[in-house]
Amino acid sequence: MEVGYSVWDWKPQRNRDITIYQQILEYLERRIFYGELSPGSRLPSERQLARYLGVNRSTIISVYQELEAKGLVEAFKRQGTYVCTRLDSGRKQSLLWHRYMKENSIPPNLSLYRRVQEEAQNDRCINFTGDLLEPLFPHDPLSDVIAENRFTESLKYEHPQGHLPLRQTISEHMKKYYNMDVTSSSVLVTSGAQQSLYLITHSLLHPGDAIAVEKPSYFCSLPLFQSAGLRLFPLSVDEHGVHPEEVEELYRKHRIQMVFLNPTYQNPTGYTLSLQRRKELLKVCSTFRIPIVEDDPFSLLAPEPVAPPLKAMDPYGLVLYIGSLSKVVASNLRVGWLIGPQEIMDRLGDVRQQMDYGLSIFPQWVAHLFLSSSHFHSHVHELQLALQRRKQLLVTLLQQHLGQYVTFHPPHGGIHLWCQIKHPVQDIKLLEAAIRKKVLYMPGSVYGAKDGHARFTFSRPYEEEMEEGVLRFKKALDIL
Amino acid sequence: MEVGYSVWDWKPQRNRDITIYQQILEYLERRIFYGELSPGSRLPSERQLARYLGVNRSTIISVYQELEAKGLVEAFKRQGTYVCTRLDSGRKQSLLWHRYMKENSIPPNLSLYRRVQEEAQNDRCINFTGDLLEPLFPHDPLSDVIAENRFTESLKYEHPQGHLPLRQTISEHMKKYYNMDVTSSSVLVTSGAQQSLYLITHSLLHPGDAIAVEKPSYFCSLPLFQSAGLRLFPLSVDEHGVHPEEVEELYRKHRIQMVFLNPTYQNPTGYTLSLQRRKELLKVCSTFRIPIVEDDPFSLLAPEPVAPPLKAMDPYGLVLYIGSLSKVVASNLRVGWLIGPQEIMDRLGDVRQQMDYGLSIFPQWVAHLFLSSSHFHSHVHELQLALQRRKQLLVTLLQQHLGQYVTFHPPHGGIHLWCQIKHPVQDIKLLEAAIRKKVLYMPGSVYGAKDGHARFTFSRPYEEEMEEGVLRFKKALDIL
Repeated sequence: MEVGYSVWDWKPQRNRDITIYQQILEYLERRIFYGELSPGSRLPSERQLARYLGVNRSTIISVYQELEAKGLVEAFKRQGTYVCTRLDSGRKQSLLWHRYMKENSIPPNLSLYRRVQEEAQNDRCINFTGDLLEPLFPHDPLSDVIAENRFTESLKYEHPQGHLPLRQTISEHMKKYYNMDVTSSSVLVTSGAQQSLYLITHSLLHPGDAIAVEKPSYFCSLPLFQSAGLRLFPLSVDEHGVHPEEVEELYRKHRIQMVFLNPTYQNPTGYTLSLQRRKELLKVCSTFRIPIVEDDPFSLLAPEPVAPPLKAMDPYGLVLYIGSLSKVVASNLRVGWLIGPQEIMDRLGDVRQQMDYGLSIFPQWVAHLFLSSSHFHSHVHELQLALQRRKQLLVTLLQQHLGQYVTFHPPHGGIHLWCQIKHPVQDIKLLEAAIRKKVLYMPGSVYGAKDGHARFTFSRPYEEEMEEGVLRFKKALDIL
Repeated sequence: MEVGYSVWDWKPQRNRDITIYQQILEYLERRIFYGELSPGSRLPSERQLARYLGVNRSTIISVYQELEAKGLVEAFKRQGTYVCTRLDSGRKQSLLWHRYMKENSIPPNLSLYRRVQEEAQNDRCINFTGDLLEPLFPHDPLSDVIAENRFTESLKYEHPQGHLPLRQTISEHMKKYYNMDVTSSSVLVTSGAQQSLYLITHSLLHPGDAIAVEKPSYFCSLPLFQSAGLRLFPLSVDEHGVHPEEVEELYRKHRIQMVFLNPTYQNPTGYTLSLQRRKELLKVCSTFRIPIVEDDPFSLLAPEPVAPPLKAMDPYGLVLYIGSLSKVVASNLRVGWLIGPQEIMDRLGDVRQQMDYGLSIFPQWVAHLFLSSSHFHSHVHELQLALQRRKQLLVTLLQQHLGQYVTFHPPHGGIHLWCQIKHPVQDIKLLEAAIRKKVLYMPGSVYGAKDGHARFTFSRPYEEEMEEGVLRFKKALDIL
């Protein structure tokens, strides 16, 4: 089964107590409201949509008329029906630009995800989504290293693989924390893990290529896999990670070209691939010569590592390693790195030049200063302790208040905790109920899980509000 | 005629005094050496290449054998012939990775361009390519604003359109220097003009779309237009810029979807679109509803502007404006911006999130501090004077030493001067001769011009070495 997301995958239900017309109308209103059908995008023709949904064309005609009456869409003779732009900048301009807003190779962000983002910006909810609460970031030490070091770097274009002093510092960092031997020429500095993934998916893979991803997975939430035209095949995840034999099976069936993994304190489950499975996985991938992309943003986020990175165990040169400072230093520092064969780094560096001409010197300067200062180690130590305390608090609160509602495996480290809700529940309904009760979590379906899962990020809310947040979530479950 | 670049567009010549075999061998060696046939890329089959070049298959077989003997390619039974990786990391690993290095949607940078880049790094030549000599950048004022302002910004993810204080500062900047009224919600901060172009070409246009670009043009040198699958149609450029009636013609013939222009002190010609033609162009584009992408990196680089930006003259909402600090503040600051309809900025911001999750706070903080300080205005003033002096110097030197060899129109501002060489000359030969004489310029064919043009960037060499550079170029012309 392929993991797919399309607005038009949905179907109205015949035996519900609201009419088909009403269901379709509400569904489209929601898609438009959530931005999934973006301003300026064209709706399918009435005939097409009737066919997709298996209903009469006359029903769709009525739905479109109603949407137009509500000012949500606009119909143009012989051109079709378009979603209105929210800021009404005049019909003429919208006519000019909407043809450039049609769905193209890069689809818009997912609806539930956007809904959560919107709500998070309003700041009305206790928030268990996102990454780290600001006070966990090293504001003072960062400001200090900037203030203590006069900026004297060159202002010319950088080397395509990034600022050399930073690449050297990253090499030392990998040695110190992971006992990994890499030279600066195997390091490509990127604007965080997102750009690393974009570079890999858009320049090493081809449209139509099959890849394996964990399910659930952060990767499933990324439209960039779609925009690269990749076919995603799921690897099931339990509390010890993926099953190496499934990789072999997918290779035999679909000739998968790469395996994408977040093996340590995985997003969204918090699970860690066991040492035994790491070894088996490397063996399988070596046998079938399948490269592994190892996304590793969290492994510093526990006092004791569970297992070394795959890259550190890889004698075959199979692993492209993605590191990042987003969860350890600051989200908007936007510094990450790729480690892999030099020829691949060279190629990706060249592609990156064409996208943005490389990363600014300033975040590279700051990252280099901070990583090579003594501040870094003590910051990481403090952060680890804070996260352990928060994790333990959330585990206790969930056991205390939600023991009858959810099951979960406490993660060893990282920032996420994954719950399965015992009773059947629709993600979209639970999310709306939670928002009404003023608590935010991330619905599992954003990551390709079946409905009825929730990701809680314990690094995000204030500790003082965590209990209230859990109680609000309980209320949301109760009103469903 | 479409502007196209393919390694295989080339043909050996029958009446030259070296054999067809030798010509093909040399051609392929060069392509490999210049990185145009990148390590790991697959050569056409012997049969295919024989057909492309119109020669016997046996000739190609011999060429491939010779290349293999030289260690430049490797042939694998039933898999084809591959360009060797320069760093020989073992045949097994290269077998693993080279299938990921095949030419895919994002092609490698152009060969002549790469050749110049390589040579520029060696620093053996007097260099008339690139952008600004480091001392022209505002090192001290930049370091000062950083030292004088403690960093206290948030470390959370930024707004998808960029740091609000910077967007406000950019609005004020556009008002002050161009009398343009834009709100911060119409501004998208990008990682420089390159990213702005990438976003436009990859998310507002579709593969197969026709667009118009100046010829010669910087845009022609950008593989990103190719990677977006666009069909490029040329607008001829004279010393007053493009001809608006050609835009109409291209629209009627090819239904062009956008016009890409660098109207002020154009790269590579230094020419400026006249006020009269600006008006006509806007009228034509308004009539046919063709959006214009206005790339404007240079317009601050002359004491008196020749004409306002198209965006400032545009009552129709047709223009997407691309601004950048790369040529005015620092290349590796990597701060630029897009200005356009809010809905388009919103869409592009969303796409950008998927590419790199936005720009780091640090360059945005620095750009905001510097643009809103009094340092900026005095820096721009000094830079303008320095560039005028350098331009005048180059004009004088060219008239004095190369009057019989080249013709040119002195530019009003900017950093580039465009020469036409009076005698017929092959760009690749002239470039190699110049490199032998230790002077670097940019061959016109990089920008889609016919052979026999040269772009001199007068902002790049030291003033003291400019005369020697011009004399060396003269020697290169003499030995051809």
